Amino acid sequence: MDYKFANRMANLKTSEIREILKITERPEIISFAGGLPAPELFPIEEIKVVNKIVLEEEGSKALQYTTTEGYIPLRKWIANRMNTKLGTDFDYENILLTHGSQQALDLTGKVFLDKGDVVLCESPTYLAAISAFRAYECEFIEVPTDNDGMIPDELEMILENTEKVKIIYVIPDFQNPTGRTWSLERRDRLVKAAIKHHIVIIEDNPYGELRFEGEDLPSVKSFDRMGSVFCLGTFSKTFCPGYRIGWIAGDKIAIQKYVLVKQGTDLQCNTIAQREIAKYLELYEIDDHIAKIREVYRRRRDLTVKTMVEEFPEGVAFTRPQGGLFAWVELPTHVNAREVLVKSLEKNVAFVPGGSFFPNGGKENTFRINFSNMPDDRIVEGLKCLAEVLRHFV
Amino acid sequence: MDYKFANRMANLKTSEIREILKITERPEIISFAGGLPAPELFPIEEIKVVNKIVLEEEGSKALQYTTTEGYIPLRKWIANRMNTKLGTDFDYENILLTHGSQQALDLTGKVFLDKGDVVLCESPTYLAAISAFRAYECEFIEVPTDNDGMIPDELEMILENTEKVKIIYVIPDFQNPTGRTWSLERRDRLVKAAIKHHIVIIEDNPYGELRFEGEDLPSVKSFDRMGSVFCLGTFSKTFCPGYRIGWIAGDKIAIQKYVLVKQGTDLQCNTIAQREIAKYLELYEIDDHIAKIREVYRRRRDLTVKTMVEEFPEGVAFTRPQGGLFAWVELPTHVNAREVLVKSLEKNVAFVPGGSFFPNGGKENTFRINFSNMPDDRIVEGLKCLAEVLRHFV
Repeated sequence: MDYKFANRMANLKTSEIREILKITERPEIISFAGGLPAPELFPIEEIKVVNKIVLEEEGSKALQYTTTEGYIPLRKWIANRMNTKLGTDFDYENILLTHGSQQALDLTGKVFLDKGDVVLCESPTYLAAISAFRAYECEFIEVPTDNDGMIPDELEMILENTEKVKIIYVIPDFQNPTGRTWSLERRDRLVKAAIKHHIVIIEDNPYGELRFEGEDLPSVKSFDRMGSVFCLGTFSKTFCPGYRIGWIAGDKIAIQKYVLVKQGTDLQCNTIAQREIAKYLELYEIDDHIAKIREVYRRRRDLTVKTMVEEFPEGVAFTRPQGGLFAWVELPTHVNAREVLVKSLEKNVAFVPGGSFFPNGGKENTFRINFSNMPDDRIVEGLKCLAEVLRHFV
Repeated sequence: MDYKFANRMANLKTSEIREILKITERPEIISFAGGLPAPELFPIEEIKVVNKIVLEEEGSKALQYTTTEGYIPLRKWIANRMNTKLGTDFDYENILLTHGSQQALDLTGKVFLDKGDVVLCESPTYLAAISAFRAYECEFIEVPTDNDGMIPDELEMILENTEKVKIIYVIPDFQNPTGRTWSLERRDRLVKAAIKHHIVIIEDNPYGELRFEGEDLPSVKSFDRMGSVFCLGTFSKTFCPGYRIGWIAGDKIAIQKYVLVKQGTDLQCNTIAQREIAKYLELYEIDDHIAKIREVYRRRRDLTVKTMVEEFPEGVAFTRPQGGLFAWVELPTHVNAREVLVKSLEKNVAFVPGGSFFPNGGKENTFRINFSNMPDDRIVEGLKCLAEVLRHFV
């Protein structure tokens, strides 16, 4: 049958990452492609304990339908954590649990975007946020971005000259894909600009807990007194991604709209996952667990940067992230990273070319390196191998 | 801040059921309102076993990200099950796992519906399907429906005279909210009409395994040789709903579009839930488990029908479902079921008024009775009480 798909389907294409990830399932591949947490750090023994307790003490509730908003003790924990770490002022009614923070992006599109509305984003930005928003037939304008975040004068000029801007989407801490972190001043100016123009900011923060050095910075939200900023968070990077538990936090009236939309989208998050995470947080010290993750990722970041410094040929620039999972590589403008990938895969090394992180295309001379998911020795081996490939191109 | 929400938000309102469910959390309430499975039937002991094995044998995979399509052994099981029970001809690549079958409805809207497109549905139809599709700004036409399903001549006339019909949405087995089951002939004629007009059919089948009497009927899909029919299924009613694992099955090319859309929507289903269900299906005999559920629900259905026959005043009509979770009550036209509910809640008895099951409004003299989730004695007590309230109205 010839299906009459919706118009939006013409704009959607397969995520390049997901396609590359299929290749990287082969064990001989050294992969810098995914955004996967290190599975050897998952607290499996603790989860076994927690699982048993939840099923014994509250099994019939944990396996039943529940409210769309989510399990109150978990939402309370999240509100407290954000208030302590991010300088926010939330209670549990500001929090809606989502099926990973990816779903919070989708719900954001559903709640705010009409066809033709404009989303402002960093340049480059998170690939799957582009897919999530694009399903609502919006346009993207990439705001020129440097090492400290979006450039305020450029942002201001775009806001002055563009109708129908609905959302400014940012990842201020250890950004995906660049690993960059916004300065304090830029956070403040972003909020001022958004409030002046009555625009919503979506502050996506999946990596903020994974800082390897330097001081934590207050969130963009902490500068907001008008309810313009919505915060996305997740347990995927600090606990484990298989549970698919993330959240969105913001103004209560707007969060009620999100709840309404989530009802029709998928009713609710996995009930037992919500209760298991809450029980884990009650019985164990997640800060100790996060410290372990940070320690391993810091070492891998160090190895990554050191090997790139030593091995990558001249003319290749890269970021030195203070946290998170990613570094970003920029090649001379004449080099196409997709061609580098073809050669690199022949040597069993994978990464994600940077082009797809620009919603309007361009910058094919870039790629992303994920350093969280390979053992130390394979990181060094893989980057040496990649350096050799690069020497043929630059 | 004054938020500029998307236009679709003006059409969405809180699910009446979810609001009533909040009231029914009070333990003194006898609730016929939800669509909740009986939690005393959840296989908690088996889930404990399965959970331990999955975490021990494959913990780091079970807690990690996975593919959007879902766990292959589980998709294979589903394809086989459908082929055996429903007369389909699927393999695992026809199946996409979804976050409950509610998500399959949402993805269907995203894949097929543009603003102004038309969805044909039974009258009445499943409340949360209305919410799911309405988010894509479609219109609904309710096809006149009797005890055997949509009336073919009426359907044909609507198809002849309506532009932009994209989807025919049906629940042919033990429908929600009416409990009715389509006849064989109506299934056949539905598919013929849809093929003639190149329209997609969504066959939603959450209750098909819960037949209390009579013979299983072949699915609507089994009459389809053109790929027009997509089947929705779920483990919520045969296993437990807390896991949020459902599926959509259909033509492989179209399913690839669903996969694409799910990537941007929420990446994937809960990984450990997928593996636990697959392990359960490997280690235990789910047919034995379903037989237990059927036995309990049959008894409750019997009690429900018997009590309604004995107690409900003259002028009140109701269905006698051969399976599923629901019966449907029709009051004399001058009686408003929302007013009945107010009085009934004063006596601690809850149900869902039928009005919201009609996307274009009307039929306020109806309500839905769920009989799966109250102990036998409370069913009788609650319906007697409700009968007393009804006597004041009719």
